[in-house]
Amino acid sequence: RLEELMAPLHAADIADLLEQMNTHDRAELIRLHDRDFDGEILSELDETLREEVIAMLHPAVLAEAVRDLESDDVVDLVEDLEEPQQEAILDALEDADRVAVERALAYPENSAGRLMQREVVMAPEDWTVGQAIDFLRAADDLPEQFYHVVLVDPRMHPVGNVTLGRLMSHRREVPLSELTEDVFEVIPVTRDEEDVAYAFNQYHLISAPVVDDDGRLVGVITIDDAMAVLDDEHEEDILRMAGVSDESSLSDTIFAAARGRATWLSVNLLTAILAAFVINLFSEEIEAMVALAVLMPIVASMGGNAGTQTMTVTVRALATRDLTAQNALRVMRREISVGAVNGVLFGVLIALVAGFWFGVPMLAAVICVAMMLTQVTAALGGFAIPMLLDRAGIDPALASGPFVTSVTDVVGFFTFLGLAGWVLL
Amino acid sequence: RLEELMAPLHAADIADLLEQMNTHDRAELIRLHDRDFDGEILSELDETLREEVIAMLHPAVLAEAVRDLESDDVVDLVEDLEEPQQEAILDALEDADRVAVERALAYPENSAGRLMQREVVMAPEDWTVGQAIDFLRAADDLPEQFYHVVLVDPRMHPVGNVTLGRLMSHRREVPLSELTEDVFEVIPVTRDEEDVAYAFNQYHLISAPVVDDDGRLVGVITIDDAMAVLDDEHEEDILRMAGVSDESSLSDTIFAAARGRATWLSVNLLTAILAAFVINLFSEEIEAMVALAVLMPIVASMGGNAGTQTMTVTVRALATRDLTAQNALRVMRREISVGAVNGVLFGVLIALVAGFWFGVPMLAAVICVAMMLTQVTAALGGFAIPMLLDRAGIDPALASGPFVTSVTDVVGFFTFLGLAGWVLL
Ligand SMILES: [Mg+2]
Ligand SMILES: [Mg+2]
Ligand SMILES: [Mg+2]
Ligand SMILES: [Mg+2]
Ligand SMILES: [Mg+2]
Ligand SMILES: [Mg+2]
Ligand SMILES: [Mg+2]
Ligand SMILES: [Mg+2]
Ligand SMILES: [Mg+2]
Ligand SMILES: [Mg+2]
Ligand SMILES: [Mg+2]
Ligand SMILES: [Mg+2]
Ligand SMILES: [Mg+2]
Repeated sequence: RLEELMAPLHAADIADLLEQMNTHDRAELIRLHDRDFDGEILSELDETLREEVIAMLHPAVLAEAVRDLESDDVVDLVEDLEEPQQEAILDALEDADRVAVERALAYPENSAGRLMQREVVMAPEDWTVGQAIDFLRAADDLPEQFYHVVLVDPRMHPVGNVTLGRLMSHRREVPLSELTEDVFEVIPVTRDEEDVAYAFNQYHLISAPVVDDDGRLVGVITIDDAMAVLDDEHEEDILRMAGVSDESSLSDTIFAAARGRATWLSVNLLTAILAAFVINLFSEEIEAMVALAVLMPIVASMGGNAGTQTMTVTVRALATRDLTAQNALRVMRREISVGAVNGVLFGVLIALVAGFWFGVPMLAAVICVAMMLTQVTAALGGFAIPMLLDRAGIDPALASGPFVTSVTDVVGFFTFLGLAGWVLL
Repeated sequence: RLEELMAPLHAADIADLLEQMNTHDRAELIRLHDRDFDGEILSELDETLREEVIAMLHPAVLAEAVRDLESDDVVDLVEDLEEPQQEAILDALEDADRVAVERALAYPENSAGRLMQREVVMAPEDWTVGQAIDFLRAADDLPEQFYHVVLVDPRMHPVGNVTLGRLMSHRREVPLSELTEDVFEVIPVTRDEEDVAYAFNQYHLISAPVVDDDGRLVGVITIDDAMAVLDDEHEEDILRMAGVSDESSLSDTIFAAARGRATWLSVNLLTAILAAFVINLFSEEIEAMVALAVLMPIVASMGGNAGTQTMTVTVRALATRDLTAQNALRVMRREISVGAVNGVLFGVLIALVAGFWFGVPMLAAVICVAMMLTQVTAALGGFAIPMLLDRAGIDPALASGPFVTSVTDVVGFFTFLGLAGWVLL
């Protein structure tokens, strides 16, 4: 009955089901599946759960499961496992596959070498359509997935891609070199997977050859794997900007999840204490006029929001390569101007509110100026912090809330309370 | 000289260059390019700049430029243009293309119908490999891009996909129906593009047939276009969560950018004023003990951060369909427990700091309890707000900072000051 229910489901959906269950139900379901477990499910499963599920499988079942996978999927499966589990899986593979996986693992983490499949369909650059067709029809070990015939020169350097569609629709005597695609990107094996995903999206690639340091063809990356990387990189950026560990997942335990958030909460605690010190500098002013304590969080909160807006735009623009050395200055000027425009707008609005509420015109003037200064500083901080991190080779998404909001909190409290102390008392 | 410099660049890179220039340089560059403008550049250009650039082109150049585009790219190009520019482009197309584009525009915005190409390579389900190959080799108008032959039954319902690779490597007499791919997803023409992108990523699709309400094949969507949608949807979510208009771009003018941010700043202003009212309820307590004003932003800021963390995890999990009716309760319980764990941890930490700083043990106890309550409320709010929006059919990413931080601000100030008033004074 269970088999019947699960049969029509795609491995990716079964993996999602396993992720959504609690640990007990998951163990139960896997026990029922114990004779025949689809390797694709392991491959689709969230990394944080793979070890748990692999540990539950009988070694023979595990061996059978991984033998059906493409070698690039095996690489993705084993690269984050602990030594003993990794060994167990490698041992289960046929010799040729094991060598392929071990070679891939020798490339740096997150590199094109880890992402590519080694099975490439290639042809000498001087072949004709007829030769290529005859070769393909005679070959008995074509890869599961291929969309291009890669043309190579005698030194095995890729020189062009011919789509299968063009191959099928041209006469036998046409040279392949006349049919190559206009857009042809060759990817070095050490290139970061994030850059690979960018290239696929930017140039609408479907597959791209991967070359070693000598420019020799060693594999091919297909767009489905690049799309998965693009998705992961977005996930990473979103979680990092929110100050959540980018390895967190919904199936984490309570303590793992709490730990993944505590790092940034600790940073935030320190910066919040710093902001409290700033407020403490003005305790006499607050005692003299308690309206200051009532209004000060408004200035800080508006600054925090504006800073987060600018920061997000900046981090995104860096990720999409829309922000470059060429336009950085112009974008910075624009962000500061935006801060000034909204600073004036919301400065006037809050001045009206504060003026009517407390009936002290000078207080209204002070909060107006403090709002303007804080909005401009928020824009500057929201732009500069991720830019500086990026220049320093650190992921700008790590700039995240805490950095920017601590800047705006400190500036907001300081300008508002400082001005108030100077003008009002 | 300019031509030589630009020639090796891909249209997508030229579009990026145009986006990064200021308006003056952009006009200059386009004037120089005036005789021959690549339609692909328009298609790659940011939506906010298309109208500006199209307006600069001579009608004859524009007509020439769009005639080279695939019909699905023309749809993407014209769908957001104003009436007169849309007309101009439609008029430039050949009749068959214009009809195709107009039909696509009749489908809802952001639907599969807008995303698909109408050019499909199909074959009757009872054909053999040999028949399909002969057909393809004889056809003289195959689409630029195709990866599958779609098998259809006599009523034109798609029943399977055969990859070109398999077609090439099997004997002529093999029936196509024996070669269909295991994974086969048929997409209704009205399906939202976001769901289409999800299906491509989840099932590793390369192309998928699109059907009308009667289940008849009307087009095909390819993965490169699905990948672009995935990228856009992420962008939209990130910008929305930060309270930035999701149509913003780096080439917006200062006032357009300021307007795109002012909406959420206005919401934030209202909620910050609400928080100020809460503080004002306790003005006597603050006058009596100014340390309360010094410490209260710490509680609120930590709550805002924790709330943003939970909110981001929730919005993401909804977007990736990892959060469903099945596991919602369990995830909520986990989030609240995480809030409790971190509440205790940071409650004790801040109690130590406050105790040593102000030397009032009861003040330390009060901030400890307030921190715990606020952390738990932040978790609840960060989870419940996007969930409720989602249930109401509103994009949960619109929950964004302002909603969640206003909840945590109000709760943070209220619990801290309220407890202090009750216990200390
Ligand atoms: Mg999944
Ligand atoms: Mg990997
Ligand atoms: Mg990475
Ligand atoms: Mg692959
Ligand atoms: Mg990244
Ligand atoms: Mg761009
Ligand atoms: Mg671009
Ligand atoms: Mg396209
Ligand atoms: Mg569109
Ligand atoms: Mg959408
Ligand atoms: Mg297309
Ligand atoms: Mg969305
Ligand atoms: Mg999932």
